[in-house]
Amino acid sequence: MSKKRKSHYHADMLSVEEAREKILSVFNKLEEISVNLEDSLGYVISKDVVSKINVPPWNNSAMDGYAVLLKDVKKASNDNIVYLNVIEEIAAGNMPKKSISLGQASRIMTGAPVPDGANAVVPFEDTDENQSKSKEKIGIKIDVVDFENIRKCGEDISEGDKVITKGTEITPAVVGVLASIGYDQIEVYRKPKVGILSTGNELIEPGEKLEKGKIYNSNSSTIASLTEQYGGETISQTHSEDTIEDLEKKLYNFHDVDLIVTSAGVSKGDYDVVKDVLNKNGDMNFWSVNMRPAKPLAFGQIVIKDKKIPLIGLPGNPVSAMIAFEKFGRYAIDKMSGKKIKHRPIIKATLTEDIHNYDGRRLYARVKVSKEDSKIIATPLKNQSSGVLTSMFLSNGLAICPSGTDILKKDQKIDVEMFGWNEDISEILN
Amino acid sequence: MSKKRKSHYHADMLSVEEAREKILSVFNKLEEISVNLEDSLGYVISKDVVSKINVPPWNNSAMDGYAVLLKDVKKASNDNIVYLNVIEEIAAGNMPKKSISLGQASRIMTGAPVPDGANAVVPFEDTDENQSKSKEKIGIKIDVVDFENIRKCGEDISEGDKVITKGTEITPAVVGVLASIGYDQIEVYRKPKVGILSTGNELIEPGEKLEKGKIYNSNSSTIASLTEQYGGETISQTHSEDTIEDLEKKLYNFHDVDLIVTSAGVSKGDYDVVKDVLNKNGDMNFWSVNMRPAKPLAFGQIVIKDKKIPLIGLPGNPVSAMIAFEKFGRYAIDKMSGKKIKHRPIIKATLTEDIHNYDGRRLYARVKVSKEDSKIIATPLKNQSSGVLTSMFLSNGLAICPSGTDILKKDQKIDVEMFGWNEDISEILN
Repeated sequence: MSKKRKSHYHADMLSVEEAREKILSVFNKLEEISVNLEDSLGYVISKDVVSKINVPPWNNSAMDGYAVLLKDVKKASNDNIVYLNVIEEIAAGNMPKKSISLGQASRIMTGAPVPDGANAVVPFEDTDENQSKSKEKIGIKIDVVDFENIRKCGEDISEGDKVITKGTEITPAVVGVLASIGYDQIEVYRKPKVGILSTGNELIEPGEKLEKGKIYNSNSSTIASLTEQYGGETISQTHSEDTIEDLEKKLYNFHDVDLIVTSAGVSKGDYDVVKDVLNKNGDMNFWSVNMRPAKPLAFGQIVIKDKKIPLIGLPGNPVSAMIAFEKFGRYAIDKMSGKKIKHRPIIKATLTEDIHNYDGRRLYARVKVSKEDSKIIATPLKNQSSGVLTSMFLSNGLAICPSGTDILKKDQKIDVEMFGWNEDISEILN
Repeated sequence: MSKKRKSHYHADMLSVEEAREKILSVFNKLEEISVNLEDSLGYVISKDVVSKINVPPWNNSAMDGYAVLLKDVKKASNDNIVYLNVIEEIAAGNMPKKSISLGQASRIMTGAPVPDGANAVVPFEDTDENQSKSKEKIGIKIDVVDFENIRKCGEDISEGDKVITKGTEITPAVVGVLASIGYDQIEVYRKPKVGILSTGNELIEPGEKLEKGKIYNSNSSTIASLTEQYGGETISQTHSEDTIEDLEKKLYNFHDVDLIVTSAGVSKGDYDVVKDVLNKNGDMNFWSVNMRPAKPLAFGQIVIKDKKIPLIGLPGNPVSAMIAFEKFGRYAIDKMSGKKIKHRPIIKATLTEDIHNYDGRRLYARVKVSKEDSKIIATPLKNQSSGVLTSMFLSNGLAICPSGTDILKKDQKIDVEMFGWNEDISEILN
C-alpha cells in the first residue's frame, strides 16, 4: 500500500522487552522428573551431576601393543632392538593377572587394564611381532615416554567431580558423558505442555474441503511446529468458533497444560467473543506492543478447573502470530524448561532496498540475508503484509528498524535477527 | 604427553574430503512416503508443491470496520464526516449477501470476505461507531487508498503457483504454508534408520554395576543422540562382545536399517574379530584418514539377510567416534534424508595458546570460543586426548590445524568449525 498514516505515539504501548518481562514473570521452571538417558536429549539437567567413579576407572591401553617398563626400552631403536619376555596376554575387559618386572612385557589390547608395574605401551607397529615366530619374546624398536599410550585412571573424570552443573541443556556430548559415568537415568525439568487454539468462524482445517468464505487454519500448525522445535509438547484443539460455548468447551480441554496459546480475537477494535471469554474466566490484559507486525497481544492467566493457566493471545494474521510467538512464547517455553534465555543471533548486513517504517513502531521486516561477492546483504521481501505467510519461509531473518526511525536506507548497514536456521548462518559466515 | 614422534606421510591416507566422497557415493535419497502435516517437521519435501487454491481464497478484511467505496470517502475527514447507509453485517466465515453501491457500506469483521463493489475497509476507530446510536448509518472520518485494509485474493499464493520446491526441509513456516493451502499430508523422503553397535569385551551398559576391568559404553548413547539430532531413527544393539558369534548375532538384528554404525575394532593394528566379521560378510575398506582424532575408519557394505547395508566403522575412543560421526555419518544421514549438504559454520577466532600438531595430519582441536572485550577468542581445552569425552561438552568448536602445519601460534587468527549450538554462535555474534 502506497500511503499510510502515522499513528501518534501511544503512552500505553509496551515495548517488546517490557511485554516479555511481564510475561516471563509468571513462569517458573517446571517440576523435576527422571528420564531415561536415551530419551534425554534436549532436556535441562535439574541437579548437579557428581561422578561416583573415575573415568576411565583404571589405567588402560590406548593401543594394541605391549605393556613395558620405561627402564627396559630406554635405548631401544630400529638398530638396537630390545627383547622382552612376554608373560601374559591381556584382552579388553579382563584384569591382568601378573605385574611387570624388569625384562618383561605383557601383550595388551586397546581398552584393556594396564598391568601393575608397566608405565607405557609400545604399539605393535613398533615391535617385531610380525617378523618374530616366538610368542614368548617380543622385540621393541622404540623408546617411549612416561605413560605413553596409556589412558590414565581418572584422566577424563575423577570420582567426586561435579561433572555437569544443573541448568545444562542435554546435548549428545552430555549424553555421552552421563553414559560414561554409568547413568541410565537423569533428573531433568519437565517439558512444558502447550495448548494451542486458533479462533474464528472463518477457519476450516487442512484436509477439509474449502467452503465459500472460509480460510484454512494455518496458525495451529505453525504454532505447534514452533512449540515442537522449541522443545514443548503440544496439545492442539485446532480451532474454535467465535461462540462462548465452543470457545469455553475447547479451552476446558486445556486443564492440564502449562501454557495456552490462542490466535486471533485480541485486537483492541474487536468486539468478538474471545476477549469476553478470556476476561470472564481470568485475569487478562490486552496490550498494544510497540512492534510491527503483531501489535495486539493478550496475556494473562485463565482459570480452568480451578487451575490458573497462563495464556498468550497472539494476533490472527499468520506472520504476526509467528513473530509474536517467537518473541514471547519461545521465551516462556525456554524458561519453563529450565533453559537459559537465548536471543537470536544478530548479523550485520547491507540493505539492498529502502525499508519504510510508517507508524513509528519497532519494525521487524522480513529479509533474505545472503552473501554476494563476500559482502553480506539483506534483501527485503517484496510483500511485507502480515497475511503473507510464504514470506516467513522465503526469508531467513528479521531486519530491525528501531522505534521512531522512519526509514532504513539502501546500502545502510543494519541489524538482522536470524531465525536461526543453521545452514543459512553457515553459508553467510563461511 | 611431552614427546611425540612425527609419522611419515602415508600415501595411502585419504583426506577427510576423499573419505567423505567415497562414503557418500553409496548413499541415495530414501523412498518417498506420505506423513501427516503434524508429524512433518524436519522431513524433506520430495515433490514440488503446487497450490490448488488462492491464498487468501477471496478478498477479505484485515480489520474490523466498514467496507466502502473509495469514491464515497474521497473527501472524508474529522471535519467532514461522510455518512453511509449500512446495508449488511458480514461476520468472518460468512459470505456477503449484498454488493456495495454508492452511498452504502457494510459492517465487516476481520477475516470476512469483502463484498462486491467495495474497494477499501475503514477501521472502526476512524468512524463514529462509538458515538452514533444508529446502526443504519455510519460516519466515516478518513479517506482511504485503493484496497486499504483488504487482503487481496491470491495475495500470498495464486492457484497453480509452485509454492515449495522438492528438496525443501520442512520448518515451522513451511508447515504453516502447507496448512494454508489445505494440505494435511505431505510427500517426503523417509528418514534413515541407523543401527548402532559398540564393540568390545570391556564394555558394560550404563545402569549396570561397574566390574573390574570394564568401562561404560558411552559411544552407543552418543551416536544415538547425534543420529536423533540429525533426524535419523535409531535402532541400538548397545554393544557386542569381541566374538564372531555375538557380533554376527547383533549385526543380524540390523537387517532392515539403512546404515550401520559400529565403534572400535577398526584400527590397522587390531587383530580382533570386528574386522574379520565385517570382511567375511561384506566388502569392507579399512582406511587411514588424514585427520586427528579419528584416523582409523572402516567403510563398506555388509550383507545381512541378502541385503547390502552400508557400514561406517568408527574408532573406539569416544571423542574420535563423535568427530568421525560428525564428519561422515551426519552427511550420510543428510543425504539419505534428501537434505542439502550442510557444513558447519566457520568462525575466525584469535587463539589464546599454541596448538601443536605432532604428526602432520589435519588436526581438529577442541576449543572454547568466546567473546572477550568484543574480540572473538578460541581457548584450546587442556586435555586433547581422544579419550576425554568431557572435552566435547566443554568445547563449542573444532580449531582446524591444516595437514602439514606443525603449530598454530598464540594470537594467530584461526578457523574454528562451530558445533552449531545456536546459543554459542548468538553470544559470539551479538
